[in-house]
Amino acid sequence: MQRIAIDMDEVIADVRPKFLSLYEREFGRPLVKEEYWGKKVYQLPGAAHIRECLHEKGFFAGLPVIPGSQECIRELMERYEVFIVTAAMEFRASFEDKFDWLQEHFPFIHWKNIVFCGDKSIISANYMIDDHAFNLEHFQGKGLLYTASHNVHETRFTRVDNWEDIRAFFRAQGA
Amino acid sequence: MQRIAIDMDEVIADVRPKFLSLYEREFGRPLVKEEYWGKKVYQLPGAAHIRECLHEKGFFAGLPVIPGSQECIRELMERYEVFIVTAAMEFRASFEDKFDWLQEHFPFIHWKNIVFCGDKSIISANYMIDDHAFNLEHFQGKGLLYTASHNVHETRFTRVDNWEDIRAFFRAQGA
Repeated sequence: MQRIAIDMDEVIADVRPKFLSLYEREFGRPLVKEEYWGKKVYQLPGAAHIRECLHEKGFFAGLPVIPGSQECIRELMERYEVFIVTAAMEFRASFEDKFDWLQEHFPFIHWKNIVFCGDKSIISANYMIDDHAFNLEHFQGKGLLYTASHNVHETRFTRVDNWEDIRAFFRAQGA
Repeated sequence: MQRIAIDMDEVIADVRPKFLSLYEREFGRPLVKEEYWGKKVYQLPGAAHIRECLHEKGFFAGLPVIPGSQECIRELMERYEVFIVTAAMEFRASFEDKFDWLQEHFPFIHWKNIVFCGDKSIISANYMIDDHAFNLEHFQGKGLLYTASHNVHETRFTRVDNWEDIRAFFRAQGA
């Protein structure tokens, strides 16, 4: 059975709303899409410290589920081995939050199929769905770049904008 | 650079003393080696419930370091990419303990090179050092079986009894 490695943040878990509201709280005004398009919110001038929230307990706990991801992953699991592979290791405070979040929203994914790592080049799979080009660069299989504000100018990988695109991609594989 | 994936429990972190003392506390007498040789302590008659301690916060925090592992890993890092790959995912309470233990005893290993997983068949490396034969069975590279009481009857893999054996093995590789 072929294997798909699926990232968490910005692929199944939506971190953007939290960053946008942190920015608004900090700078007293909401961001418009044109301002953060092409980068991450914490890459905006004066906003680097916002990234520190990733180290706080609870940050990952209440993230919204990216629409369609639950249904599509359940479907994919009929034909593929699905692993959730998240670069959690930079954030000690995230481990339990991320694990609990998966138990809550993706209870059908077994703990054996969850990976917390740092450098994803250690992952062996046939497909990888990720929003970071650097995770796909050294991947041996087929990489799918999940669209996020920070990767919109990236052109090296097959792009998917949402879970409908992912469904269509794997239907076309016919495996 | 070739890559070595190294397990934690019973390879760099010694869990056996804790299980032996739990058994003694529970059954009122110390175990002798002949009793647990060939199995795990919690596979002895009436002792299955001892395994539950793996789910307790703090279990992994105070484990002794397996002698020679720190020095040898530091040496190996001069010639290889070293990853610590531990099947932590079954034990939610172990994540922070394991991470802190690594920071304390192996501060020279970057968080990028730490992996918490379940099924290790997702790991891509050239070598894997592990005490569980089932982790080596589906490994694409060269597996080294680190001797532990529960694997002494296993004959399918190159066996290493201690970190001196590991040093000798990699010296012989000449890479």
